[in-house]
Amino acid sequence: MPLLGLLPRRAWASLLSQLLRPPCASCTGAVRCQSQVAEAVLTSQLKAHQEKPNFIIKTPKGTRDLSPQHMVVREKILDLVISCFKRHGAKGMDTPAFELKETLTEKYGEDSGLMYDLKDQGGELLSLRYDLTVPFARYLAMNKVKKMKRYHVGKVWRRESPTIVQGRYREFCQCDFDIAGQFDPMIPDAECLKIMCEILSGLQLGDFLIKMAWKDVRHEMVVKKGLAPEVADRIGDYVQCHGGVSLVEQMFQDPRLSQNKQALEGLGDLKLLFEYLTLFGIADKISFDLSLARGLDYYTGVIYEAVLLQTPTQAGEEPLNVGSVAAGGRYDGLVGMFDPKGHKVPCVGLSIGVERIFYIVEQRMKTKGEKVRTTETQVFVATPQKNFLQERLKLIAELWDSGIKAEMLYKNNPKLLTQLHYCESTGIPLVVIIGEQELKEGVIKIRSVASREEVAIKRENFVAEIQKRLSES
Amino acid sequence: MPLLGLLPRRAWASLLSQLLRPPCASCTGAVRCQSQVAEAVLTSQLKAHQEKPNFIIKTPKGTRDLSPQHMVVREKILDLVISCFKRHGAKGMDTPAFELKETLTEKYGEDSGLMYDLKDQGGELLSLRYDLTVPFARYLAMNKVKKMKRYHVGKVWRRESPTIVQGRYREFCQCDFDIAGQFDPMIPDAECLKIMCEILSGLQLGDFLIKMAWKDVRHEMVVKKGLAPEVADRIGDYVQCHGGVSLVEQMFQDPRLSQNKQALEGLGDLKLLFEYLTLFGIADKISFDLSLARGLDYYTGVIYEAVLLQTPTQAGEEPLNVGSVAAGGRYDGLVGMFDPKGHKVPCVGLSIGVERIFYIVEQRMKTKGEKVRTTETQVFVATPQKNFLQERLKLIAELWDSGIKAEMLYKNNPKLLTQLHYCESTGIPLVVIIGEQELKEGVIKIRSVASREEVAIKRENFVAEIQKRLSES
Repeated sequence: MPLLGLLPRRAWASLLSQLLRPPCASCTGAVRCQSQVAEAVLTSQLKAHQEKPNFIIKTPKGTRDLSPQHMVVREKILDLVISCFKRHGAKGMDTPAFELKETLTEKYGEDSGLMYDLKDQGGELLSLRYDLTVPFARYLAMNKVKKMKRYHVGKVWRRESPTIVQGRYREFCQCDFDIAGQFDPMIPDAECLKIMCEILSGLQLGDFLIKMAWKDVRHEMVVKKGLAPEVADRIGDYVQCHGGVSLVEQMFQDPRLSQNKQALEGLGDLKLLFEYLTLFGIADKISFDLSLARGLDYYTGVIYEAVLLQTPTQAGEEPLNVGSVAAGGRYDGLVGMFDPKGHKVPCVGLSIGVERIFYIVEQRMKTKGEKVRTTETQVFVATPQKNFLQERLKLIAELWDSGIKAEMLYKNNPKLLTQLHYCESTGIPLVVIIGEQELKEGVIKIRSVASREEVAIKRENFVAEIQKRLSES
Repeated sequence: MPLLGLLPRRAWASLLSQLLRPPCASCTGAVRCQSQVAEAVLTSQLKAHQEKPNFIIKTPKGTRDLSPQHMVVREKILDLVISCFKRHGAKGMDTPAFELKETLTEKYGEDSGLMYDLKDQGGELLSLRYDLTVPFARYLAMNKVKKMKRYHVGKVWRRESPTIVQGRYREFCQCDFDIAGQFDPMIPDAECLKIMCEILSGLQLGDFLIKMAWKDVRHEMVVKKGLAPEVADRIGDYVQCHGGVSLVEQMFQDPRLSQNKQALEGLGDLKLLFEYLTLFGIADKISFDLSLARGLDYYTGVIYEAVLLQTPTQAGEEPLNVGSVAAGGRYDGLVGMFDPKGHKVPCVGLSIGVERIFYIVEQRMKTKGEKVRTTETQVFVATPQKNFLQERLKLIAELWDSGIKAEMLYKNNPKLLTQLHYCESTGIPLVVIIGEQELKEGVIKIRSVASREEVAIKRENFVAEIQKRLSES
């Protein structure tokens, strides 16, 4: 163990004899030492004075800290979102917070001015990532990956004018699921819509609807399928009047439309999509929106957006204007922009607007006066008497070593009432108590905070008893 | 539902009649349309040419993408670390990726030049966070929090010369646990050391030792407790020769030392700490290191660092030079630097060197040829015949809706062999098979990929049967 600098036995003996010399040296040392102390105190006082900040203590504009309360809500929502992504066979991945600036340039259209650039510190020119889609496309091209189903949860940054009151920040979390690869038409697209539905249902935010941008559907029909613009526009009129699946069914049942070969071809992909959505049991959740238009430059096909259908109407809840809570679409051209030979990898994906969802859930909890526990502590170690720190430390170590979440107060002699108050205010359900009597009798008292019932359990059985109680609750 | 733009019935009838006009308009439209298609194709070809990147596709210097393989290893390790933090009653929190530059200035000593600054884009001057400790102190001061036990897992950024071969990057993850507040001496400090031990034991990285910086211990004794420097240096000699607890015991058993009042006082905190560490059962894990010195400027007390004691010696494993895998210490002055009145909040904490731990675990898996599954898919939906896409979609939706992780190929008519190969290569344990015969008999075949055994289960029972099998495995 050379790391410990162990000396051979002889050297050790010689050092020990030095250490145990007569104390005169340490006397003179003490004087010097006291002046050192005075000096140190003075220095630290001066320093404390100098250290007073002459600037405002804040987080940067448009950003905020996430408190333990925020984190608890986030963790639950992200768990549900990630579980859904995994249920659909997605792999996790991550990319750096910043990219070469040129990787991001020209991918976001007029939004490009909202990127955070890093200072030129004598290296590459860098920008903070603006979304998770462009880094994913860069990853696919860089590693020549032709096929991948992945999710990515991470922060992105946009220098937008923050309207903080609505839960929009310059730093925010995105949760993306994407399917890259050449597949038979509309199967991955339908899965993306299914995922949106599963997540929005799972989160129990109320009724929702996924709206497809009619402008994009029309563009697909006219430019890609060769449908006459006039016919497309008439389908558009049709579409305005009917939500999703019924539209497609009626059109195909209508002999005059179903005998128009071009209309049929133009409607082919849409028909296929709604067929799959029907098999997935979500066709009634999909509708068209004439006003919806592509957001970011890289989308190539139909985009879709999920909206909550009604503002909460429970007593006391304020109406929430939250806008879109999920969005997605095809971006078949993006990967090709990074490939030296322009090879394309078709992609379709979705992004869950988790920040807005966090905001909605937090607002609801606030209105209902719901409290969240910010810790998961199961057991508190308490004592009613003085001088029981050692026993408490032994007990708590046993709990920790058994995987039980446990806390105690960092005081030598805390009052019992203070300890019990701590449990009540932080929601700890069980207390183990050790005092003079318990020590004498070889027992530990287990107390339920809710019922205030106490039972004495043999010292050697108390961990097992706690584990039993925790597994039952 | 105003969002859907539903028209009254009469308007709908009028639109329908327009839509169903004679087809002449659509004929002329078709011509225009075909030229539009040609134009679109041309544009897209030209665009594809223009879009060829004239720059290198890479991640910024010192950074990298985390592949699904990396992510799986990380997730397991972070789960263990976070579980331990929660077991000790810590709350989660997060801070923005960047801070006002002046928040970070003068906190890191000579390392300050390694901060990433953001470009001045007409707002505040910002820098990426360099660690999680300074943002935590800023948070405490800003919110006037006097007491808090929190953990924080997040990325930090340092413009160090990257030595990537050893697993050091400019962007890396930190896992911090800290206790802020005025408490009785050495109780929170002992808990921090206990946490380090629990995590390093839990990760099964082999034997480890936590080394306390002797220079800091000496400084505490001389400057704060007034021990003569000579006596401190002799204790230092003593310390060099003995690991942790035995040192303290021997010193206090030694009548000539234990009768030196100043030595006793100087050793008081150390004695207390080792007493608690003994109760926690970890005193033998702690030792002193003469060469260790404070890293960052803000540490005020004894710092400690955990090192793995031996490089792996299993056959075929290359020796790993990984250095410190965890570190921590007291920083009683940092919060006061942010408080307008200089009010201090004593803090003690630790940081787990998860990047090095990721690296060690990944290297070991590589050497052992261990494969990781990058998805968690439990069931694959397959068919041996053509034209079974609809049935597969119905089945997979049932599985998803029952919370089962399921995948299928995005092809209309995939070959059975391709489907089974996919299961074997990605480690999916179960296959459900639907074909002509199954459809006729109203059953689903369930196949175990490992044993290749197949059983037919009634269609209505197949989800329950799968859930049963998954809960057993």
